[in-house]
Amino acid sequence: MSWFETSIMARKGVAKGRPGARHRISIEDQGTFHYVYGPYADPVLEVDPGAVVEAETHDAFEGKITKESDRPTEILNFPFLNPQTGPIFVRGAEKGDALAVRILSIKPRGPQPVGTTCLIPEFGGLVGTGITAMLNPPLPEKVRKLNVDEQWVYWSDTLKLPYEPFIGTIGTAPEIEAISSLQPDYYGGNMDTPDVAPGAIIYLPVNKAGGYLYLGDCHAIQGDGELCGVALEMPATVEVQIDLIKGHGNGWPQLETETTMGFIGSARPLEDAARIAYRELVRWVAAETGQSVEDAYMLLTMCGKVRLGNMVDPKYSIGASIEKRYLK
Amino acid sequence: MSWFETSIMARKGVAKGRPGARHRISIEDQGTFHYVYGPYADPVLEVDPGAVVEAETHDAFEGKITKESDRPTEILNFPFLNPQTGPIFVRGAEKGDALAVRILSIKPRGPQPVGTTCLIPEFGGLVGTGITAMLNPPLPEKVRKLNVDEQWVYWSDTLKLPYEPFIGTIGTAPEIEAISSLQPDYYGGNMDTPDVAPGAIIYLPVNKAGGYLYLGDCHAIQGDGELCGVALEMPATVEVQIDLIKGHGNGWPQLETETTMGFIGSARPLEDAARIAYRELVRWVAAETGQSVEDAYMLLTMCGKVRLGNMVDPKYSIGASIEKRYLK
Amino acid sequence: MSWFETSIMARKGVAKGRPGARHRISIEDQGTFHYVYGPYADPVLEVDPGAVVEAETHDAFEGKITKESDRPTEILNFPFLNPQTGPIFVRGAEKGDALAVRILSIKPRGPQPVGTTCLIPEFGGLVGTGITAMLNPPLPEKVRKLNVDEQWVYWSDTLKLPYEPFIGTIGTAPEIEAISSLQPDYYGGNMDTPDVAPGAIIYLPVNKAGGYLYLGDCHAIQGDGELCGVALEMPATVEVQIDLIKGHGNGWPQLETETTMGFIGSARPLEDAARIAYRELVRWVAAETGQSVEDAYMLLTMCGKVRLGNMVDPKYSIGASIEKRYLK
Amino acid sequence: MSWFETSIMARKGVAKGRPGARHRISIEDQGTFHYVYGPYADPVLEVDPGAVVEAETHDAFEGKITKESDRPTEILNFPFLNPQTGPIFVRGAEKGDALAVRILSIKPRGPQPVGTTCLIPEFGGLVGTGITAMLNPPLPEKVRKLNVDEQWVYWSDTLKLPYEPFIGTIGTAPEIEAISSLQPDYYGGNMDTPDVAPGAIIYLPVNKAGGYLYLGDCHAIQGDGELCGVALEMPATVEVQIDLIKGHGNGWPQLETETTMGFIGSARPLEDAARIAYRELVRWVAAETGQSVEDAYMLLTMCGKVRLGNMVDPKYSIGASIEKRYLK
Repeated sequence: MSWFETSIMARKGVAKGRPGARHRISIEDQGTFHYVYGPYADPVLEVDPGAVVEAETHDAFEGKITKESDRPTEILNFPFLNPQTGPIFVRGAEKGDALAVRILSIKPRGPQPVGTTCLIPEFGGLVGTGITAMLNPPLPEKVRKLNVDEQWVYWSDTLKLPYEPFIGTIGTAPEIEAISSLQPDYYGGNMDTPDVAPGAIIYLPVNKAGGYLYLGDCHAIQGDGELCGVALEMPATVEVQIDLIKGHGNGWPQLETETTMGFIGSARPLEDAARIAYRELVRWVAAETGQSVEDAYMLLTMCGKVRLGNMVDPKYSIGASIEKRYLK
Repeated sequence: MSWFETSIMARKGVAKGRPGARHRISIEDQGTFHYVYGPYADPVLEVDPGAVVEAETHDAFEGKITKESDRPTEILNFPFLNPQTGPIFVRGAEKGDALAVRILSIKPRGPQPVGTTCLIPEFGGLVGTGITAMLNPPLPEKVRKLNVDEQWVYWSDTLKLPYEPFIGTIGTAPEIEAISSLQPDYYGGNMDTPDVAPGAIIYLPVNKAGGYLYLGDCHAIQGDGELCGVALEMPATVEVQIDLIKGHGNGWPQLETETTMGFIGSARPLEDAARIAYRELVRWVAAETGQSVEDAYMLLTMCGKVRLGNMVDPKYSIGASIEKRYLK
Repeated sequence: MSWFETSIMARKGVAKGRPGARHRISIEDQGTFHYVYGPYADPVLEVDPGAVVEAETHDAFEGKITKESDRPTEILNFPFLNPQTGPIFVRGAEKGDALAVRILSIKPRGPQPVGTTCLIPEFGGLVGTGITAMLNPPLPEKVRKLNVDEQWVYWSDTLKLPYEPFIGTIGTAPEIEAISSLQPDYYGGNMDTPDVAPGAIIYLPVNKAGGYLYLGDCHAIQGDGELCGVALEMPATVEVQIDLIKGHGNGWPQLETETTMGFIGSARPLEDAARIAYRELVRWVAAETGQSVEDAYMLLTMCGKVRLGNMVDPKYSIGASIEKRYLK
Repeated sequence: MSWFETSIMARKGVAKGRPGARHRISIEDQGTFHYVYGPYADPVLEVDPGAVVEAETHDAFEGKITKESDRPTEILNFPFLNPQTGPIFVRGAEKGDALAVRILSIKPRGPQPVGTTCLIPEFGGLVGTGITAMLNPPLPEKVRKLNVDEQWVYWSDTLKLPYEPFIGTIGTAPEIEAISSLQPDYYGGNMDTPDVAPGAIIYLPVNKAGGYLYLGDCHAIQGDGELCGVALEMPATVEVQIDLIKGHGNGWPQLETETTMGFIGSARPLEDAARIAYRELVRWVAAETGQSVEDAYMLLTMCGKVRLGNMVDPKYSIGASIEKRYLK
């Protein structure tokens, strides 16, 4: 038996974690991409719980940065950044439920060099930005285009980095807000958390009927914090299996892997992102194990794990988790 | 000559600061109120620059808290909070312009006690919240209903406070986002800054054609920071004169009074709100006076003034200003 | 009767606010200056409550920046910055008491141009620093030397600014720590809060026997936030009257003026400085007026005032206050 | 050949990484413990580079919490917390050098239950504190005493956690400051970073002659962030090998393991801790590999790793690192 049989998705999903009908959303199917997470767009696809969806995604620059001599400030047109595929309407999803999204695979899509990273003025973790407003001169703009295959990222002639793909931006629609796909929040969005990778299941709060699942912004590899503001951005083909957990009631994205259970918080300052993730986790551990909140809090002071997603987006993201073996 | 003749609005407005046609938006005219600042709503009114608009606003609770025994957690239905009047479409307004809004008067509206303040669990400046997530037990819920007239706020039998009204929430629509009216940002919104009061002119960035002006959330009085999360909330009748500054190009709300010129920044942590406001101001002082950015920065280290708007909303707001007499 | 007769100092001081013996500390008396607030230095003066002390202070650069062509990075020798006069041992002061320091006068001292301001790389409110670490290039170094008299600060041929002097750094020794005089904290220190000016009384927590009062770093004028990192720094002659409040028990500096009562908090991020100041004030208002903490919290949401001291030092400082007329 | 032969310590240390004379500091040898990191204490031991020191440490509560019915607020006497063994004077160490401290072993010391964890009011990552000041009621005090051996921590009858010991507090003296051992900063101190564990080498900036090495506060296990404010605190016997890197010039603690190289930053808010650690690392990677700072910044956006030390101390600590295999 695979660990998946014991996951929340398999145990509590409407489809019991069983794969249902297959669907595909190509770039052409999608047509118009979305730059906000919101309820005002028409779904590009409607599915039943259990659906397996293969979706094509653009990179965060919508493929406009094609060579190392390109200048991002001349090419990029804020706020039309980080284009998202979707939304996908999940039948039966209602406010208070959660969408369970199991990530099956992520593959680079399109001609080489398929990966892009760059330095953009007023953006990044170690420079002044529009929010952390400084008077210092910016660093120079810079673009790197890198070859990527399903095994390696080719940084230079002498250095290759492992292909460790994940979905940078995934989430549901807020109930009445439509928020830039550059931002992460309680509904998911641009969390840029490397653990949202093949093999993991993410549980996203449903805020309105149908859930409205969006995704995009795949990364071939990313360090903790997405330091310079972008990762190795790539267009991708993503395969996910979608299920529905009725009444799951999580207020923030929950992430399950074979060995861990956690939550992702997004906020500024960074300690507030950590507090959100850990408070959700404390309460979940207490409820799951029958311990008091105080005991769960003390258990996590012993063995909680933190993953920094991003420290560059409009809100920063942190995941807090516990190994499942400590939950017995 | 009034100082107003020398204001940006009078000097650079399309209507040269001259009052034009009068309009009125009653509660009934408005019909459906808005809980987001966004481009997806239909304008309730379309005006030319110079228009004088008398608008009725709800209080932040849409009038649902009527007595001191009410419990906010039972009555309030997040995210349907802080209802906004508008949007008002201003003819000729285009991205890159600014709407100039001169606040003429703010009067309490409706039966006494017209003012409401309260303690709401997980909300406020000195308690854990959904963002600054804590495990501590909350403070008890509490409601105070206070009489208000155009002179006083009646706190108790022995203490009355001055009536110092202002508009808590005012702004334009983002270009593609629709953001909760509980949040302030670059387009204005829920800044809760007491200087946005009768006599002042606020210049709001236009992000899409028509500008889409929203307003609401008037306060009869408020301390710096809006400490417990709400001020003395009241339904009101607001009179404003609207003009249009073509190509004004401000990225954040600019606030002009008889004696001061400033900007309002909104962000977390609070120092980032201050940085935004001050960076805008440094650049504006430099451009206006012909000094270098470095000299403007040093001048403001001598005589910049800061007003804390709120330290309780999803982003905190700070205004930074300089006395006009130092700009010659 | 002057308001001073009703102050905490006059009502509760050991000397009942009456001036006692006069003392003087010249630069020569002081000899060695101090760069930390701590208990390890020998007192330069021992006084009884009531003492009036005239103290000479250096500017924050110890007078080393003498002309506009000086380069701070070549002249300043970190951590030997912000030299402090003192410590003054106050007889009878014990842990849990407060020193009351009434500021009588502050006069510029020495030859013109007596005032210095400057831009120092990696220091200031709108640039990357050693703590808010950035990769951006720094702004250029720059020094301004300005004439100052007891009426004006002479910014340029066409602009003079009012002389609004205050003590930038004042406090007691921690019990066992010795902390850089560049930092503010619970014992006072480098708060850079313009309200610590002639006419005001500051109540500083006593952490060890004798209190160990230090002071220095006078400013001829300063805007809110001390934006570029320094104010208009000047050597000064300061006259203060010192009293002792037994068992006052304040955990943070308390500031009283003719019309206001407040507290100063110092922390990062900036909202934590505000929280500290406001929590002290809420509790004080509740205790003083007999209201519940909840009512005091709601009263301050109506009429609390905030003054930003600095947003550039190792901890940021904010003062929160209430008008005394609201305390009846 | 062990990886250690290629470490900075072995390559650049005065003793070339070779173990020298053995020393021992027992509880009795130490006599008086220290609660500040500073230059005002007399060294308890003077050693040559290469020295191997076995030091006994108290737990953070100095052993005063002996049973689960103890109440920390009645027993603990702030600021006399987190007692430190040392300082150790290293001959030849001068300002600008680094002490290299290789952690050889950490063993629990004393009778069972040797481990202590607890909830202390106004302290911890998910409660209001003296700095993040709240009005909420505190959580109840709570103490857990746990058996610990060199293999396991015995949380309950059904759950044991791995023994993963590390040194919570280690560092050198500041040049003129004496700072509470509860705080981490540029000189090390209370970083509470689990990677400071047996097998690792930490390079600590020398700020004054002799370096003045302090250590204490060992933890049997700790999660990322030290969530409730304390880990599993234990008295310990620590064995370290000390070397001296002349002119190493690191401004913050550097941490080397078999596979990684990193830096630890400490600041509030948490993003500033991350910025410090990552800026140090960017510059180090650039210098070490001959890449530009911009390229090093982009490389770390691909493969930088972050470890959250603590989010509860007066400053928060974050380690940022890179795998050595990416440095070729």
